[in-house]
Amino acid sequence: MLITEMTEKECREFLERVSIARLGCSLNDQPYVVPVGIAFEEDYIYVFSTLGKKIKWMRSNPKVCIQADESKGQSDWISVIANGEFQELPEPQFTDERAHARKLLEKRHQWWLNAMAERRNELTDQEIKPIFFRIRISSVTGLRGSAE
Amino acid sequence: MLITEMTEKECREFLERVSIARLGCSLNDQPYVVPVGIAFEEDYIYVFSTLGKKIKWMRSNPKVCIQADESKGQSDWISVIANGEFQELPEPQFTDERAHARKLLEKRHQWWLNAMAERRNELTDQEIKPIFFRIRISSVTGLRGSAE
Repeated sequence: MLITEMTEKECREFLERVSIARLGCSLNDQPYVVPVGIAFEEDYIYVFSTLGKKIKWMRSNPKVCIQADESKGQSDWISVIANGEFQELPEPQFTDERAHARKLLEKRHQWWLNAMAERRNELTDQEIKPIFFRIRISSVTGLRGSAE
Repeated sequence: MLITEMTEKECREFLERVSIARLGCSLNDQPYVVPVGIAFEEDYIYVFSTLGKKIKWMRSNPKVCIQADESKGQSDWISVIANGEFQELPEPQFTDERAHARKLLEKRHQWWLNAMAERRNELTDQEIKPIFFRIRISSVTGLRGSAE
């Protein structure tokens, strides 16, 4: 087993092809981690969600950590961590960015159907309005494990 | 797609069979998320690590979030989130608990070899002393996605 640090370029290439990641946020230093669907492009990770705990928390504290990994075995894996800042994309100021985010995310996955299904079960109609946000990446690091 | 809340019993049964999870910690409300190997037993999630950022952060702020998931497809998945508190297991006060943690973790995986390999590449010998800790679980919740 050899573990090496990835270059920033390698980390970005990995983020471009991954579609599920874990989003960590924090309120009063209580961390909270949830799986999210993502689409990475240039300096932003786009995420689609509905209102919920993570949105409320990030509105209060925009510091975010995104972690993504891929494992083909115990000796063949990648883990990338990106730190960044939550940026909501409300109408009408961010109409173009919202459309762009939607297009990127729909291309990747229909995972957002999951999010909607969840909210339909739990919440009232008013709360299922989709929220688009993005994480402006400030740093990204990664480790790769491989057979020696 | 139907998304339902899991019972606490179901969440605990899931944690008992999962071996990799994401650990979220936070310092000055900056979240940090890393994959870790775990072994769950009763009210504790046992984790093995070497000294590093997450250990330093949890020593400063013991509030932790553990997130574990399993996906067999977009319409067949489980995600469990456990909140808890970091408890280090230093010698000699916790010799028995350390031995117990090691036994549990080795049974699951040789994933700790990965952690050691990483540290050997990056750090001096003095820093690769293994650290065992556990998370005392205060709450656990889970969602299950399934075909309707």
